[in-house]
Amino acid sequence: MDFEFVKPLLKEDQKSKIVLLVMDGLGGLPMEPGGKTELESARKPNMDALAEKSMLGLHHSVPFGITPGSGQAHLGLFGYNPTKFEIGRGVLSALGVDFDLGPNDVAARGNFATVDSEGFITDRRAGRIPTEEGERLCNLIKEKVQLPGVELFLVPEKEYRFVLVLRAEGLSGDLSDTDPQAVGKRAHLANATSPAGEHTAELVREFVKQANEVLKNEHPANSFVLRGFAAMPRWPNFKEAWGLDAVAIAMYPMYRGVSKVVGMTVLPPAESMEHEISMLEEQWHQHDFFFVHIKKTDSYGEDGNFDGKVHIIEEVDALLPRILALDPDVLIVTGDHSTPAKMKSHSAHPVPTMIYAKLARPDGIKEFGERACIAGSLGPRFDAVDLMPFALSLANRLEKFGA
Amino acid sequence: MDFEFVKPLLKEDQKSKIVLLVMDGLGGLPMEPGGKTELESARKPNMDALAEKSMLGLHHSVPFGITPGSGQAHLGLFGYNPTKFEIGRGVLSALGVDFDLGPNDVAARGNFATVDSEGFITDRRAGRIPTEEGERLCNLIKEKVQLPGVELFLVPEKEYRFVLVLRAEGLSGDLSDTDPQAVGKRAHLANATSPAGEHTAELVREFVKQANEVLKNEHPANSFVLRGFAAMPRWPNFKEAWGLDAVAIAMYPMYRGVSKVVGMTVLPPAESMEHEISMLEEQWHQHDFFFVHIKKTDSYGEDGNFDGKVHIIEEVDALLPRILALDPDVLIVTGDHSTPAKMKSHSAHPVPTMIYAKLARPDGIKEFGERACIAGSLGPRFDAVDLMPFALSLANRLEKFGA
Repeated sequence: MDFEFVKPLLKEDQKSKIVLLVMDGLGGLPMEPGGKTELESARKPNMDALAEKSMLGLHHSVPFGITPGSGQAHLGLFGYNPTKFEIGRGVLSALGVDFDLGPNDVAARGNFATVDSEGFITDRRAGRIPTEEGERLCNLIKEKVQLPGVELFLVPEKEYRFVLVLRAEGLSGDLSDTDPQAVGKRAHLANATSPAGEHTAELVREFVKQANEVLKNEHPANSFVLRGFAAMPRWPNFKEAWGLDAVAIAMYPMYRGVSKVVGMTVLPPAESMEHEISMLEEQWHQHDFFFVHIKKTDSYGEDGNFDGKVHIIEEVDALLPRILALDPDVLIVTGDHSTPAKMKSHSAHPVPTMIYAKLARPDGIKEFGERACIAGSLGPRFDAVDLMPFALSLANRLEKFGA
Repeated sequence: MDFEFVKPLLKEDQKSKIVLLVMDGLGGLPMEPGGKTELESARKPNMDALAEKSMLGLHHSVPFGITPGSGQAHLGLFGYNPTKFEIGRGVLSALGVDFDLGPNDVAARGNFATVDSEGFITDRRAGRIPTEEGERLCNLIKEKVQLPGVELFLVPEKEYRFVLVLRAEGLSGDLSDTDPQAVGKRAHLANATSPAGEHTAELVREFVKQANEVLKNEHPANSFVLRGFAAMPRWPNFKEAWGLDAVAIAMYPMYRGVSKVVGMTVLPPAESMEHEISMLEEQWHQHDFFFVHIKKTDSYGEDGNFDGKVHIIEEVDALLPRILALDPDVLIVTGDHSTPAKMKSHSAHPVPTMIYAKLARPDGIKEFGERACIAGSLGPRFDAVDLMPFALSLANRLEKFGA
């Protein structure tokens, strides 16, 4: 769905409220043949009761068959087709470390690396140095390197990874990687991929030169590579796109970050799931759209902890009555992608979804689960970007198309 | 799905194996109201047991509602959208007679025809001359016609039909038909449809002149018409597109041909279905992707032989344990299109499909049949080109999209 198509249909001054509750990595798999998935295993009387009044289905947020990353999957749920609204690796990394990326910033993902005396890379991860060592090296570079007119940020991620941000007027993300993505090669020079990138490429080459000088006597991290240069994208914000004043409630940086990219108001990190629901209650009269993100379903999936994931779903179920007590006009309950504990990773399996709405045409399916959703009216594999326009219609926020 | 989208996601050095088992013309219809289809009638305990562990649905390989030809349908299953990857009629005809079409070849489909003394066509099929007569005339033309610098091939098909191939450097398929597609008209001159076709058009006009001279005293086949000039398409091959070393196992020329067009290794014709499975077993360690084509389901469908088609499905079912014994990571069981015995022809009805995979999320449907597949998680009418990316994900051969 195209924003330009929806825009002329937006009604003004509507008071209806939409909640998007995302349990990250919700979709799962049975551990054993004939078994149940995490969601099917969970005791979740509130979700099951809501399912009976809702429209069900399974979504994919990137083209069917492809496994989505978290940022891209959320863009899909927000109605921003992630194959059209591309978000650079550097930006995602900056969002992931809660860096407050601004309009004059260009970000890249960095790896500390080991090079031999000729400059050939012998280890793209510098022996997976500890996180504290990465922090020390980031601080060292920040202290020693000077680029006139440019404010520099080096934010450590985990182990050998860091985020580099250059801040100055007139920068561009149109730059090639220095990372050759292989050992036995020298790091590339950063080159402009469009005329707009020329000046930034010069600055980055100077940064690389100075920073390598700083690192040259370190061991094993005596160099580094950079990739995914990108500036904050300039997209229609959520209010322009969907006519909704939106707020994001999330515990993890990545999800607050991607909400910021689409122009949502982003609340400070919540401390627990209960706290997230309390924030929702507090904010209820201030906004139209509420994105509530539950991280731990995905974390347990990634850990291969089936029971842990089941338990989180049960905890969310116990919180559901508090959301319903707010009397939302539309409540979408879904995940951003599947993270089956069996696979310990994101997967391409479609994601169970239900839309409850006062104006829903209920499917009457008495269970919220992967296989129960197959029979739902949203279909067994619908495009996640179809959710927002339908939610707007169910919230009585769209005029009809044509007369 | 775009190859360019998938390409950066391909993992290297994966060992997982994918089998695509195509029963040609698999989809069917009940002969009588209230009856069962061929697939629903077949006793097929192995397929039904596999269905329970698989994801089911019904596909269309060309736009929904349209009946596909065999070549186009297979392109769809191979993930090459047949409305974008156009394959010329001449090329399909050459593949259909097992002609080993090379990069310097241009092929066209020919009809022997009858013309009156003024050159007006009175019969576009020359009274449906017997196949042996067609062979004699092809040989006669090949013997007598000389085009400097061009190697000529005339391969008889059935009755009045033949395939013409011109082989030389610098030829092009950008030519208009000589076939006016109607009686009472003269054959057209072959004209270039782009500047690249000029030289080839000249050669074809010279060929037509000389060959008509050879035929002028024959009866009833005293002339001929040509259509569908085409060169072998230059597409991303299967390895480039999907990262898979693929092999085709098929008894009939058309299917080996279309496999060759996408760059699969093509084995010599198998002698029976059992032989095809033996070839699969022998090749198991040499390749990643195995296309196994069963022709007789379609042949019996075209003959209107319902029971014959049922029996072939049962024979394939009996062979299924040998495929499963190889322990494929992904096994797709489907058809290329429907050929209901009731219709004695290809049809537009969606085609039953199941994807078994170690990482599938089983639908738990206990039967592989047209109506059973409606309730499957792939949906009741999905695009065949979606199969390949999902199969790659289930075979753990794709990175996620984004972070």
